[in-house]
Amino acid sequence: MLAPNIETFIGCEAKYPDSRIVLYGAPFDSTTSFRPGARFGPSAMRHESFGLETYSPYQDADLTQCAVFDSGDLELSFGSPERALYDIETRAAVILQDEKIPLLLGGEHLVTLGAVRAAAKKYADLHIIHFDAHADLRDQYLDAKLSHACVIRRCWDLLGDGRIHQFAIRSGEREEFQFAKEHTDFHPFDFEGLGHTLSMLKKQNVPIYFTIDLDCLDPSIFPGTGTPEAGGVSFLQLLEALRAVCTANVIGADLNELASTLDHSGISTAAACKVLREFLIALDTKNK
Amino acid sequence: MLAPNIETFIGCEAKYPDSRIVLYGAPFDSTTSFRPGARFGPSAMRHESFGLETYSPYQDADLTQCAVFDSGDLELSFGSPERALYDIETRAAVILQDEKIPLLLGGEHLVTLGAVRAAAKKYADLHIIHFDAHADLRDQYLDAKLSHACVIRRCWDLLGDGRIHQFAIRSGEREEFQFAKEHTDFHPFDFEGLGHTLSMLKKQNVPIYFTIDLDCLDPSIFPGTGTPEAGGVSFLQLLEALRAVCTANVIGADLNELASTLDHSGISTAAACKVLREFLIALDTKNK
Amino acid sequence: MLAPNIETFIGCEAKYPDSRIVLYGAPFDSTTSFRPGARFGPSAMRHESFGLETYSPYQDADLTQCAVFDSGDLELSFGSPERALYDIETRAAVILQDEKIPLLLGGEHLVTLGAVRAAAKKYADLHIIHFDAHADLRDQYLDAKLSHACVIRRCWDLLGDGRIHQFAIRSGEREEFQFAKEHTDFHPFDFEGLGHTLSMLKKQNVPIYFTIDLDCLDPSIFPGTGTPEAGGVSFLQLLEALRAVCTANVIGADLNELASTLDHSGISTAAACKVLREFLIALDTKNK
Amino acid sequence: MLAPNIETFIGCEAKYPDSRIVLYGAPFDSTTSFRPGARFGPSAMRHESFGLETYSPYQDADLTQCAVFDSGDLELSFGSPERALYDIETRAAVILQDEKIPLLLGGEHLVTLGAVRAAAKKYADLHIIHFDAHADLRDQYLDAKLSHACVIRRCWDLLGDGRIHQFAIRSGEREEFQFAKEHTDFHPFDFEGLGHTLSMLKKQNVPIYFTIDLDCLDPSIFPGTGTPEAGGVSFLQLLEALRAVCTANVIGADLNELASTLDHSGISTAAACKVLREFLIALDTKNK
Amino acid sequence: MLAPNIETFIGCEAKYPDSRIVLYGAPFDSTTSFRPGARFGPSAMRHESFGLETYSPYQDADLTQCAVFDSGDLELSFGSPERALYDIETRAAVILQDEKIPLLLGGEHLVTLGAVRAAAKKYADLHIIHFDAHADLRDQYLDAKLSHACVIRRCWDLLGDGRIHQFAIRSGEREEFQFAKEHTDFHPFDFEGLGHTLSMLKKQNVPIYFTIDLDCLDPSIFPGTGTPEAGGVSFLQLLEALRAVCTANVIGADLNELASTLDHSGISTAAACKVLREFLIALDTKNK
Amino acid sequence: MLAPNIETFIGCEAKYPDSRIVLYGAPFDSTTSFRPGARFGPSAMRHESFGLETYSPYQDADLTQCAVFDSGDLELSFGSPERALYDIETRAAVILQDEKIPLLLGGEHLVTLGAVRAAAKKYADLHIIHFDAHADLRDQYLDAKLSHACVIRRCWDLLGDGRIHQFAIRSGEREEFQFAKEHTDFHPFDFEGLGHTLSMLKKQNVPIYFTIDLDCLDPSIFPGTGTPEAGGVSFLQLLEALRAVCTANVIGADLNELASTLDHSGISTAAACKVLREFLIALDTKNK
Repeated sequence: MLAPNIETFIGCEAKYPDSRIVLYGAPFDSTTSFRPGARFGPSAMRHESFGLETYSPYQDADLTQCAVFDSGDLELSFGSPERALYDIETRAAVILQDEKIPLLLGGEHLVTLGAVRAAAKKYADLHIIHFDAHADLRDQYLDAKLSHACVIRRCWDLLGDGRIHQFAIRSGEREEFQFAKEHTDFHPFDFEGLGHTLSMLKKQNVPIYFTIDLDCLDPSIFPGTGTPEAGGVSFLQLLEALRAVCTANVIGADLNELASTLDHSGISTAAACKVLREFLIALDTKNK
Repeated sequence: MLAPNIETFIGCEAKYPDSRIVLYGAPFDSTTSFRPGARFGPSAMRHESFGLETYSPYQDADLTQCAVFDSGDLELSFGSPERALYDIETRAAVILQDEKIPLLLGGEHLVTLGAVRAAAKKYADLHIIHFDAHADLRDQYLDAKLSHACVIRRCWDLLGDGRIHQFAIRSGEREEFQFAKEHTDFHPFDFEGLGHTLSMLKKQNVPIYFTIDLDCLDPSIFPGTGTPEAGGVSFLQLLEALRAVCTANVIGADLNELASTLDHSGISTAAACKVLREFLIALDTKNK
Repeated sequence: MLAPNIETFIGCEAKYPDSRIVLYGAPFDSTTSFRPGARFGPSAMRHESFGLETYSPYQDADLTQCAVFDSGDLELSFGSPERALYDIETRAAVILQDEKIPLLLGGEHLVTLGAVRAAAKKYADLHIIHFDAHADLRDQYLDAKLSHACVIRRCWDLLGDGRIHQFAIRSGEREEFQFAKEHTDFHPFDFEGLGHTLSMLKKQNVPIYFTIDLDCLDPSIFPGTGTPEAGGVSFLQLLEALRAVCTANVIGADLNELASTLDHSGISTAAACKVLREFLIALDTKNK
Repeated sequence: MLAPNIETFIGCEAKYPDSRIVLYGAPFDSTTSFRPGARFGPSAMRHESFGLETYSPYQDADLTQCAVFDSGDLELSFGSPERALYDIETRAAVILQDEKIPLLLGGEHLVTLGAVRAAAKKYADLHIIHFDAHADLRDQYLDAKLSHACVIRRCWDLLGDGRIHQFAIRSGEREEFQFAKEHTDFHPFDFEGLGHTLSMLKKQNVPIYFTIDLDCLDPSIFPGTGTPEAGGVSFLQLLEALRAVCTANVIGADLNELASTLDHSGISTAAACKVLREFLIALDTKNK
Repeated sequence: MLAPNIETFIGCEAKYPDSRIVLYGAPFDSTTSFRPGARFGPSAMRHESFGLETYSPYQDADLTQCAVFDSGDLELSFGSPERALYDIETRAAVILQDEKIPLLLGGEHLVTLGAVRAAAKKYADLHIIHFDAHADLRDQYLDAKLSHACVIRRCWDLLGDGRIHQFAIRSGEREEFQFAKEHTDFHPFDFEGLGHTLSMLKKQNVPIYFTIDLDCLDPSIFPGTGTPEAGGVSFLQLLEALRAVCTANVIGADLNELASTLDHSGISTAAACKVLREFLIALDTKNK
Repeated sequence: MLAPNIETFIGCEAKYPDSRIVLYGAPFDSTTSFRPGARFGPSAMRHESFGLETYSPYQDADLTQCAVFDSGDLELSFGSPERALYDIETRAAVILQDEKIPLLLGGEHLVTLGAVRAAAKKYADLHIIHFDAHADLRDQYLDAKLSHACVIRRCWDLLGDGRIHQFAIRSGEREEFQFAKEHTDFHPFDFEGLGHTLSMLKKQNVPIYFTIDLDCLDPSIFPGTGTPEAGGVSFLQLLEALRAVCTANVIGADLNELASTLDHSGISTAAACKVLREFLIALDTKNK
């Protein structure tokens, strides 16, 4: 008998009970102020992944041997950020409760807040590692508190000083950079200081939520994003940094801001797929 | 002394006190569920209008001799439809109070609700003429009451039965078509019956809010819109119909759903500019 | 427990045993000589169908109430037309044997041959109704017998004179037009004569394989195809004609030549989705 | 021994001495004020013509049996319209002197002036038939007399009243429409009156220069042009009109304003190629 | 009372009398021989700047605290380079006379000549610092002396040997490279030697006109330009070099060759906006 | 008398008998499994080369002084890899027999096999130097032995162990990497080890076939290819490496996998043109 059409990220074919990592997508970009399109990120990654090799020569490991389940995309309410965050938090909570690592595919960066809310409820001592071009530390943006430009500030509201570690930031208002200097572990422009931060976090063995805004990459290799910022990190720098982070105690994660429709050449989606492959393999290796 | 850069829709250079029609833009598309981009419509029309002739051979009249003021775009809060509608309503109310015709450039179709709220407060006997591919009569969409897919239903909440006249509708849920049959003056597929509707409205001399969703046009001539629906009306049919409506008592209007970034050829923006020229000339001629 | 991501054409959610129509995709375009991309057609239709209403105002019926199963895409060997045709024929034969109507989504037009081979084995008296811009009657093309440009000629090899009914053809070599005059029921440019052909076929109650090359549509509404030919039929003409054919005894069908990547505006995919909705509803209505 | 790469418009393989029609390209668009790109027209038509059938089912004739020579593109000086026109005139004069029909591929419409100058020197009683969306009758544009927007006015400077016959015009300044009414045989919007004009010109057997600005076509079928104007003629209307003109005494011609780079779908170039095929066949048939 | 729509580069809101730097645009590309589109550069930068932060983390300074006035675009005559240069020179002269720094936004590189003519009239000892992929030293190009490919040669005609300092050049004819070796201070491929050149110029305290052709950037980060040349400098290298130059006595400047329409991803316009922000802050800091 | 239109790669205007290098194109991509378009590579390079300088500042040499003949593209049978390879082999054999270096422009990488077959027949001791992102060492792919993904494996079938030298490989199945370790001289990720390999090959003075898959370049500078792989080599690294290889005994070569239609910005085609210029100059210099 014929089977219906199933579409998952390539090589993510574990059954849910057997999985250690669970993908879930949040195709949401309602608060994006400049150029929307991040809503198309999760399905683009899933769809274009059929052009990706599952084997990583960087880690000499194969995604097909990792235990990843792809639960597809949430159906979110456009125009209602609070409701969308609630649905994301609910899904993240289920996965966390099942002792698996939720890996959220955005969507705009605001979606991170839903997952962080769930993680912070489970882990009182949660830290966040944040790779991004933007500080995302505004208190409000265009009169909204729930905006992609405020997401890390909202996380700070939850976690407080010294719990957020930011890397590769190269854009923001003066006020955000000042706030960062006072309240976060702040590393502008690149990954300098990551080793030190990680050795400290590992010593404390704290749980880490790891959020990657793909626009930390240079726009030359990742043009398909809402607010491209020249002067970013290279693909290989990102791979190295994310593998380093995955050796610590990552209990939840996300990868966001692929706006696939803004890049007709397809290199952004292809790069995102490869980052995800490396991310999944690194996370799974640590948790095997 | 040098002057700063002013950018208005071509030929719309009246001073505000002298104007009869006032343009205002609402670059908002947060509730767009399928393909966003309507936020770019107003600035695209303004910017590309420099390729448009101000003279209309269809009406043998020139836009430069109409009394139109372009007040630019509102700065709206993405992700907060209620706040955006409030700002739109406020601007529309100011213009109506000054006894001018507000002509709103969307943005997604939800923006109409802000303007209709202002118009309905001033005119208790308001009617709406609605050109669109979609019925927009859902009671809610993805759990939201304030959605582009519900905008005419929200207008009906305000105005009730027999006050909304819909033309060229060719897409919707079965429930919307049923609702339309019972509650609106409904004309699917094209403009058949428009003459009859207009002669009735003119006899009563009621005030009319006229909303045009540009996706009533066939996608062949207007591909740059979020949800293109094959089988639409032609450009010349639309011009003829809008000129007919403008002979009635139109007290407010809008033109929306140009998502300029979805059409790299530029024909959608060019068509929208020409529709706006014809619209402004027809409205102004009636009100001279 | 979370479910994996299933992606079918919208509203096609019958279980296989309950279905009357079965979709299957053939993402193949290896013999396309001019501009490839038809391989992306089936997945584009499936993916973009989430922007389509399931209700048809043209037929006042809803796709969700039809009995359609979507079996996804075949995994075909690029560069080996004979093997690809074999796999298509095999799938079609399974569906025909289960007394269901196979509806193939191409892919380039050559894929039709696989399905016709299966149908001709089951139905000795098979007729073909063919909507297309191109005659596809070359005996060979660039030294190949199995080419998109030869597919109807290959069908004629199987069925012989008087069994193929061609409509809307407006491009080909002089030899193809001459061949058509001698060997097929040939109607260039549009659907003139379709009523007559159908009444004859209904009288005989013969089984019909119905193949639609979407490039019969005018390129203005369907630019996303390998070889666009100006001067085509309109969307509404195509809908009317296909509804007419579906009142006859259609036992298998296909819809092909959407090369979605050639049209960034997305109107081609949207039009193809709507044609498919109307096609499925018309076929299902007849077979209920 | 291997031969170098020759690229001509498909089917135009006559030797120069045997040819009746000679193609020459003018890849020039320096005075285009809105969106450049017409410079790419001639090479795009030549290159994409390999996807075109040489057989015309409309005229039941084949381009390979016409006597057409393709002399390639002129190398013109960007930024110097007068020099470019001189080079075009020189080429046209050579072809006219050899008793062949020069068929110029633009480029922006200004290029016509070079060819008309050559034709008017040879034929004192020259008439012009002009298909276009734009009147092109400005006396000057942005301080320039040699502009695409002035080209027909410059032709009128040469030929005077009653010698220019304009069809399908739907855009221009009020002054241009007034000038047209007084000085040209003016037919706005479509081809109404063409039959009458032609029968008059045939009676007098005057030599005709026939210039087609492809933007007379509706932008839905021809989006790839600098200034698309909604409300144009259809492809089949254009074919019918140009075949009619070709029954008169056409001694020179051009086809211009394809800006292929503005239309990624390729339908504009494909349509232009087909118009050129039909044009060449019609011209050649008359002159055999 | 409502205000009309004003559009300036973000953060450039000084009044003219208070300003130290004045932006003016020259949307001209008539002599571009390969791929036009630089005409769209100035308005694209202005329009897309609303996605740019005004704060520079590189210089820890904010554009809103600089004294910049944006005087909009000149309306130039396409097809007449001499007239366009005259209009540019006139505008530059006004700004120089008011003791402000004119910063010209091109357009093709030829526009520089207009500004240099004005600067050379005021400053007899003018030097030029030139960042570019191309030498632009041809004596003529396609029979034209006023061409983008000749602009630095025309400047040399004005200034003579030893006054022009060229960096990052990686493309040109053999003759241009030879000319450069004999007549300019020539640094191919990158910014090597810039420190030495600057210390010499500072010692002499000569006035400097600083012209940046953005195609000195690698095409990976700046694809949207007429003639992309692989092998360029990185974004951070350019920022560092331009900040260095701005510590010398820059009395006029330009930024040109953004052809925004050639890059649909938008990263070129975004990069250009950021270069302009850094440029304005560096110039203003020096001149405070 | 007018000449027909000849289109060759710029500066390649030697007569065949005088030439040392002969270009020939193989516009074939039938086995491309992911994104087709490499078929357009050769004509795109030829066509866009008119924007390329013939002078190389890297090698201080001019392409116009090299002895290169461009024999245009083969007309290959789509859908029949075996026949296409036969035609390629035949052309390569002719050129080799005339003691010239055949330089093949692909097309997908499979085309290399045709040329290698010809070279291996002439040179029993042939070695291959292979630059690529992909190992191309699968034994079969989607049931096909003749696939772009298997091409180097097929070359290994011909030549055996130790004859293939692979560089810059960063993608493949685990099995391919294992095969490489056992059977080829394998250098993943970059050009490390190239100097050693070359000095060994030069010592033996063996004939070398040099195949460059342009996707070895980073997608940031070369997005227009079927399967872009982030993490590639830079343009300048590639130039340096290819100049090094050309100092050895290269007797045949190819450059493939430019899928120009996937990159609307044009930087991929421009980069490919420049690589070809440098390649031809380096090959010719060695062979003068």
